[in-house]
Amino acid sequence: MNAEAIKKLFQQVKSGDLTTDDAVQQLRHLPFEDLGFANVDHHRAVRVGMAEVIFGPGKRPDHMAKIFASLAKRGNNVLATRATEEQFRAVKKKFKKAEYNELARAVFLRQDNKIYGKGTIVVVSAGTSDIPVAEEAVVTAELMGNEVQHVFDVGVAGIHRLLARREVLMGARVLIVCAGMEGALPSVVGGLTSVPVIAVPTSVGYGAAFGGLAALLGMLNSCASNVTVVNIDNGFGAGYVASMINRL
Amino acid sequence: MNAEAIKKLFQQVKSGDLTTDDAVQQLRHLPFEDLGFANVDHHRAVRVGMAEVIFGPGKRPDHMAKIFASLAKRGNNVLATRATEEQFRAVKKKFKKAEYNELARAVFLRQDNKIYGKGTIVVVSAGTSDIPVAEEAVVTAELMGNEVQHVFDVGVAGIHRLLARREVLMGARVLIVCAGMEGALPSVVGGLTSVPVIAVPTSVGYGAAFGGLAALLGMLNSCASNVTVVNIDNGFGAGYVASMINRL
Amino acid sequence: MNAEAIKKLFQQVKSGDLTTDDAVQQLRHLPFEDLGFANVDHHRAVRVGMAEVIFGPGKRPDHMAKIFASLAKRGNNVLATRATEEQFRAVKKKFKKAEYNELARAVFLRQDNKIYGKGTIVVVSAGTSDIPVAEEAVVTAELMGNEVQHVFDVGVAGIHRLLARREVLMGARVLIVCAGMEGALPSVVGGLTSVPVIAVPTSVGYGAAFGGLAALLGMLNSCASNVTVVNIDNGFGAGYVASMINRL
Amino acid sequence: MNAEAIKKLFQQVKSGDLTTDDAVQQLRHLPFEDLGFANVDHHRAVRVGMAEVIFGPGKRPDHMAKIFASLAKRGNNVLATRATEEQFRAVKKKFKKAEYNELARAVFLRQDNKIYGKGTIVVVSAGTSDIPVAEEAVVTAELMGNEVQHVFDVGVAGIHRLLARREVLMGARVLIVCAGMEGALPSVVGGLTSVPVIAVPTSVGYGAAFGGLAALLGMLNSCASNVTVVNIDNGFGAGYVASMINRL
Amino acid sequence: MNAEAIKKLFQQVKSGDLTTDDAVQQLRHLPFEDLGFANVDHHRAVRVGMAEVIFGPGKRPDHMAKIFASLAKRGNNVLATRATEEQFRAVKKKFKKAEYNELARAVFLRQDNKIYGKGTIVVVSAGTSDIPVAEEAVVTAELMGNEVQHVFDVGVAGIHRLLARREVLMGARVLIVCAGMEGALPSVVGGLTSVPVIAVPTSVGYGAAFGGLAALLGMLNSCASNVTVVNIDNGFGAGYVASMINRL
Amino acid sequence: MNAEAIKKLFQQVKSGDLTTDDAVQQLRHLPFEDLGFANVDHHRAVRVGMAEVIFGPGKRPDHMAKIFASLAKRGNNVLATRATEEQFRAVKKKFKKAEYNELARAVFLRQDNKIYGKGTIVVVSAGTSDIPVAEEAVVTAELMGNEVQHVFDVGVAGIHRLLARREVLMGARVLIVCAGMEGALPSVVGGLTSVPVIAVPTSVGYGAAFGGLAALLGMLNSCASNVTVVNIDNGFGAGYVASMINRL
Amino acid sequence: MNAEAIKKLFQQVKSGDLTTDDAVQQLRHLPFEDLGFANVDHHRAVRVGMAEVIFGPGKRPDHMAKIFASLAKRGNNVLATRATEEQFRAVKKKFKKAEYNELARAVFLRQDNKIYGKGTIVVVSAGTSDIPVAEEAVVTAELMGNEVQHVFDVGVAGIHRLLARREVLMGARVLIVCAGMEGALPSVVGGLTSVPVIAVPTSVGYGAAFGGLAALLGMLNSCASNVTVVNIDNGFGAGYVASMINRL
Amino acid sequence: MNAEAIKKLFQQVKSGDLTTDDAVQQLRHLPFEDLGFANVDHHRAVRVGMAEVIFGPGKRPDHMAKIFASLAKRGNNVLATRATEEQFRAVKKKFKKAEYNELARAVFLRQDNKIYGKGTIVVVSAGTSDIPVAEEAVVTAELMGNEVQHVFDVGVAGIHRLLARREVLMGARVLIVCAGMEGALPSVVGGLTSVPVIAVPTSVGYGAAFGGLAALLGMLNSCASNVTVVNIDNGFGAGYVASMINRL
Repeated sequence: MNAEAIKKLFQQVKSGDLTTDDAVQQLRHLPFEDLGFANVDHHRAVRVGMAEVIFGPGKRPDHMAKIFASLAKRGNNVLATRATEEQFRAVKKKFKKAEYNELARAVFLRQDNKIYGKGTIVVVSAGTSDIPVAEEAVVTAELMGNEVQHVFDVGVAGIHRLLARREVLMGARVLIVCAGMEGALPSVVGGLTSVPVIAVPTSVGYGAAFGGLAALLGMLNSCASNVTVVNIDNGFGAGYVASMINRL
Repeated sequence: MNAEAIKKLFQQVKSGDLTTDDAVQQLRHLPFEDLGFANVDHHRAVRVGMAEVIFGPGKRPDHMAKIFASLAKRGNNVLATRATEEQFRAVKKKFKKAEYNELARAVFLRQDNKIYGKGTIVVVSAGTSDIPVAEEAVVTAELMGNEVQHVFDVGVAGIHRLLARREVLMGARVLIVCAGMEGALPSVVGGLTSVPVIAVPTSVGYGAAFGGLAALLGMLNSCASNVTVVNIDNGFGAGYVASMINRL
Repeated sequence: MNAEAIKKLFQQVKSGDLTTDDAVQQLRHLPFEDLGFANVDHHRAVRVGMAEVIFGPGKRPDHMAKIFASLAKRGNNVLATRATEEQFRAVKKKFKKAEYNELARAVFLRQDNKIYGKGTIVVVSAGTSDIPVAEEAVVTAELMGNEVQHVFDVGVAGIHRLLARREVLMGARVLIVCAGMEGALPSVVGGLTSVPVIAVPTSVGYGAAFGGLAALLGMLNSCASNVTVVNIDNGFGAGYVASMINRL
Repeated sequence: MNAEAIKKLFQQVKSGDLTTDDAVQQLRHLPFEDLGFANVDHHRAVRVGMAEVIFGPGKRPDHMAKIFASLAKRGNNVLATRATEEQFRAVKKKFKKAEYNELARAVFLRQDNKIYGKGTIVVVSAGTSDIPVAEEAVVTAELMGNEVQHVFDVGVAGIHRLLARREVLMGARVLIVCAGMEGALPSVVGGLTSVPVIAVPTSVGYGAAFGGLAALLGMLNSCASNVTVVNIDNGFGAGYVASMINRL
Repeated sequence: MNAEAIKKLFQQVKSGDLTTDDAVQQLRHLPFEDLGFANVDHHRAVRVGMAEVIFGPGKRPDHMAKIFASLAKRGNNVLATRATEEQFRAVKKKFKKAEYNELARAVFLRQDNKIYGKGTIVVVSAGTSDIPVAEEAVVTAELMGNEVQHVFDVGVAGIHRLLARREVLMGARVLIVCAGMEGALPSVVGGLTSVPVIAVPTSVGYGAAFGGLAALLGMLNSCASNVTVVNIDNGFGAGYVASMINRL
Repeated sequence: MNAEAIKKLFQQVKSGDLTTDDAVQQLRHLPFEDLGFANVDHHRAVRVGMAEVIFGPGKRPDHMAKIFASLAKRGNNVLATRATEEQFRAVKKKFKKAEYNELARAVFLRQDNKIYGKGTIVVVSAGTSDIPVAEEAVVTAELMGNEVQHVFDVGVAGIHRLLARREVLMGARVLIVCAGMEGALPSVVGGLTSVPVIAVPTSVGYGAAFGGLAALLGMLNSCASNVTVVNIDNGFGAGYVASMINRL
Repeated sequence: MNAEAIKKLFQQVKSGDLTTDDAVQQLRHLPFEDLGFANVDHHRAVRVGMAEVIFGPGKRPDHMAKIFASLAKRGNNVLATRATEEQFRAVKKKFKKAEYNELARAVFLRQDNKIYGKGTIVVVSAGTSDIPVAEEAVVTAELMGNEVQHVFDVGVAGIHRLLARREVLMGARVLIVCAGMEGALPSVVGGLTSVPVIAVPTSVGYGAAFGGLAALLGMLNSCASNVTVVNIDNGFGAGYVASMINRL
Repeated sequence: MNAEAIKKLFQQVKSGDLTTDDAVQQLRHLPFEDLGFANVDHHRAVRVGMAEVIFGPGKRPDHMAKIFASLAKRGNNVLATRATEEQFRAVKKKFKKAEYNELARAVFLRQDNKIYGKGTIVVVSAGTSDIPVAEEAVVTAELMGNEVQHVFDVGVAGIHRLLARREVLMGARVLIVCAGMEGALPSVVGGLTSVPVIAVPTSVGYGAAFGGLAALLGMLNSCASNVTVVNIDNGFGAGYVASMINRL
């Protein structure tokens, strides 16, 4: 409901180019289309800088492919997260260039290789088991037009490993830090750097890890003030918001 | 442990300006001083762009004043959060210009009025009870050198109120959204805008609000991808990280 | 234990048409029958306006079919929720007209097409993954004799989608709103309308969604006062109570 | 944003009675006013059938009185919930006829005595400790123009007490059932009646009652299908939604 | 360490029938034997009135059979709970008379048909899905020598069904009440009777039932004072303690 | 609704001693009276063997005294739990013989000194901080006509203290075991004895004791099969049900 | 029940120095005495190397003093934790040399200054608010005969502060690490050292710290394998077990 | 960053044996190598006394084998926990002497048979289902060079079984106690002994055991002061830290 567009409507009515009824109708006509099973939101590409991303779980492969196609025709990069190989095959049939990052469980189509981000996004992960989540962040940030670096296996119990990579950390414009278990890594990284840190708790761990709850609580209570948190295992969300920050 | 500084140490040793023992000593001498009851971290001003902020609860007024003074002498703005009036009075005795924002429970001293942020930070709060938390975010962001606007009482159950303030929201470079109860406001604001949204759950509510848990979980599960979350009632953290983003 | 019926008993005793022992016996004889494995409660059809609905999980297909038959012989519509295809086939053998709504996992037999509800029940769902729960609500409300409309994929992060369907919402006499993740949709819908809103948290989401807990807490803390809540994924309950309200 | 009103705007523009700029301005001008500390939402009286209710906690007595006055001038009934005696005295100064229900902690002003509800709302409470919550429901429902009856001290461990009041229950068009501890009363009442039951868990109990959590979970899992639930101790919400149903 | 036995030891030492070393040894020799993988506790038969019961999960079929045999040779009844069919077949090979109650998942061998209980234990279950847990209680109580009656499908939402069975309830010396979902049945049954009620929460339900937590909390907060609670799905424990009470 | 009483009603109707209308009326007239603020349930004395006990919290002293008087006039013992000294003084004014057990916070009036229990109830408490809860159990059991013994300060970390009191434990017909912190005592006591053990978790402890939750969970998971559990700090409930068992 | 002591008993019986009855009696006579309100366990001094420590909360000052005296007469050091000033004054009256550590809320009497520990116990605390808990650990360890060092204010967000104290850490034989908020410090310290680390979560923090739960879960999930955990705020327990380890 | 090594660097620079740039480089060169998918930390063998242990879950068999080989070449014992048979076979191919403890799910290679521990570590387990966790502790402690004894099936409900093994317990220098359900065993063992007790909660149990939460809370609240706790099912951690203590 952009003020200019509305003003133009009024002017068209005034000039007689449009009847009042048609104007009311147009006012209501927002730019989304109905595929019958999901409202694909092209408008968002304008509003938030990138086409809607598809959340894979529970979607039938053919539905997935149809939504994917609907999004792809605008020429943007398209991403489907937590996608199965079966969903990938359905997409692949329509788009020969579609790729599958098995680790990140991401299906994507790269149509736009331009770099929009102004600096580097560094993705840090604590243990080898956290890598799939970190990879999802990497894929997301790359598809949204960012330079991305991945520093892995630098958990806090071997602090010298992390310190050894300090120069890479210092080179980041935005940091994404993925950790399970006690989720302490974002606090340490946050203290070492002076840029925003997006913390991603992972469900890695057992027993009192309670599926990522321990890491989540740890990160929310971080004593480093530059840390904000996204949902457990939400590598996509971290990549998305880091990308948004990196475009500023 | 800046590489240049270390290199210089080696050069001084080589040139004989420094003995090896003194060099080892200097290498170890990090820039923090010991007040006897707390390590005040001046180094952080360099590292993260602003002097350490004082967390008020449990600190004796005279200790508070002493730490405050230690931080103030560098010429930066100084902030004590969740401070009592008694703590304020102890600070006030030493610093005539110290101010107290009663709503935000913040004691602060403004010594640097420069604007460092590149855009406006807009702080949005859902209900009147969320205002204290929002105010803490406002005070923090202002002291860190940002233009700040506060949009309040725009809860999601009266969506037209929020939509009426849409232009202000669209003008933000970073958004802070404070909400208690169901904590839904960040999702709606996140969907309306294309900049990073820092969500602050507040402990406002009763019964199944469980002291902010409901809002916290709601925000972590936001369907808007540009939302990240800080701890319950952590207006300071939101202001801090928003400020950091706004400097980029 | 209707007063009239009891009074009649006393009169029959007085007139000698009934011995006192038989009267005591009849007083105790309540209208339910024992199938050996479950008390089928025909009485409820009288009391609460519709025959007992069968909860599918854990029931053997043949038991399911037997209970179904016992309920069907009265001529009412019969509904089995969360039913498997195998259970459906067992029912189908006895009732050729029995249908299976795969999405809602509902087996039902339509024997009564009368509309009892006085207005339209509108079922709103936030994301495509919430549709199965919403469908259960739709099926239930339709079988109980209501006009039902389904508005789907109108999550709060794209508020314009919801606003574009506002006229449909305004036409509802009762609203059912299904949402997972942060569960914010009922608050927004509740604020836009002036009729009762039955909120259904769904188990859609991951991580800190904790199987629907986040959405549940969000809905219980709704700042819209016309919202009440049913159990997680309880589309049936929502359809049932909405139907009851719509008959008033 | 009523279609008729918008259409009229277009017509005024067409006829030259309004400039396009003024039209855009009017389109944006929604009917709420800014008191400086809270957006009072008169519009809601139109939308949801009654003026905004004031949530007392944390409001300064003079602010409370000012908001109260702003709402009262329309001639509707006004209600402030969880209000203190001090807040009441501030209101009383401006409105001689304002009343205070100490049990329900409710301040209210009755300006409209019309009955809008079509039947009786029966409020049932389990133990004597649940009465304050039940009273809040009673006051709310009465102020919104309903006939209300209160059945109290009929907990499930003495089922004959409840059965003895069955005729009152059967006479209800909507039921509100308040219970703490195990929260079982709504299930029993729901099974006895064929109208909607709004269940209100109360924080009555100790130990594993966990401040109303036990009752809340019990009610959400009610085996009676006509039960919906509101937040712990939310007598107001129950009265509000029951009133809304009773007006249908 | 019975005083008489110890006294006898001392006397044997005194009389020279036993060396002091042998006495110390005997003092230490407690009546359990080591099977290599589990200490089978025959002593308990003396102490608590029945041989140790075998908890099935995780035991290899051959181990199960071996433990079973070790217990059976004393002539008592033997019970293995939560046993698989495979475990049953291993036992069956050794004991032709061993039986399997599929519903209760119980393997048992009846060697002693005497009735030890002084009255009837009545096992009540709320819904058809609670029957397996109730059956475990029935089997346990029967094997421990009690008359047992089972009243099923009498949930609180159809209170007349329960009242119709009141005479059976009144005939109990001890009651076991199994219920899932809101777990309200023990409160109602407890209020109707004047004997101890053992409440067994079951994991029946979904969503906010949280695997029996809702029922558990409900029962712990029962407003009926004659209710005590055992673990979720612990039909065995209920049958065991009811049996113990019934022998008093 | 005793069958005999009902039969008599029918006979009176038959003989003309009663009109049918009066009979219906009498059928409905259950033996409880309405004090205006609470239904005092004298009927329960018949049903469950003792007059209703008063739960003190939140009751005004004068209300408390009035309810107390209503219960006392039947000649039974009367007990008010969790009562304040102020409530006690109000009762004391009416009943000179009323006593106050400060530790147990119990007000009581002893009018009936008969022993109804058939054996001894032994109340065991783990630490000195658990004594108030244990005392409540003692007072309750004594007032209900039982011989009671109290074994205190025998926590599991000093197992020899408990073993030293073993003879007392062995002499119990029913055991009540109160423990906070890890709540392990009932398991050990349960293993040593062959009578029912009522476990009472107390809120004693700090940190991860979570107000008695740790003890509660420990007791529910007891590996001793003769253990059942009541609510946290519910000494009254334990005393009540132990008394009921002891009368069998 | 030392084997030698028992053997001696048998020998005395054999030699006629002891009657069998007296022997049974002596066997039962364990070395604790009954003060009427608490079993003071002198035996423990032998068994676990130090007299029983008094847990202050809820104890009347005179009881405290009496228990204190009972323990002091053996000549050991005596410690009362979480003691109030009032309790201290009661002790002080009897023991002029009793001291009060206000920060740690500990009352103690030093009668034995010997060092039993073989190395140094280093107590590390993350923030200034964690100091009281750390102090309790320090006092406990010192009273139990250890050299203790306290490194404070070295939270993980300023990792250089910790690294600057590394030499002290490396000099420890046992480490105690106290931290609230995200509780990450034990993981980092654990990784830096090769001795046992006792982690103490503190209740420092707010919001999602949930009274120390976040720190507790973090520590339990530590990726450093030399970390074990005690209860929230349990500085005493940490000091106690560290002392025990240091004596090995 | 050993001071000596650094000093030597400075001396080499001074003597001209090293350029300043090379010195800076060497300073940064920490002793870990990059395998491409995981940082194997040989340095830890020096720091914490044993090579890094491999956490099996989620690792591809070939990756596992590669990491295993990297660790094995130093001549230390190597351990992979929670390893699958498939992972074992991959390791076995490279190391003929690699063994698999099926119960403990541990793959290990024994290259160093020296005993480093100064006493015996005794591992106690409560029930037969706790044995796998206990076995993991046993394997870990043995591989780290300790004498280990395992006392099993000595749950607290049969306290005489435990007391019968008291001499073994008294012989321990460190104790590991594994228990599920109520987790009471460490408290009892802790009270009987005067050495450190590492408590391991296991996920054994059902219902309100909540996957080991009940045992975990029980152990954290142990009334025995010599008890510390590790994560649920963390037999490895217990073995590791016990080993570390035993080397002191």
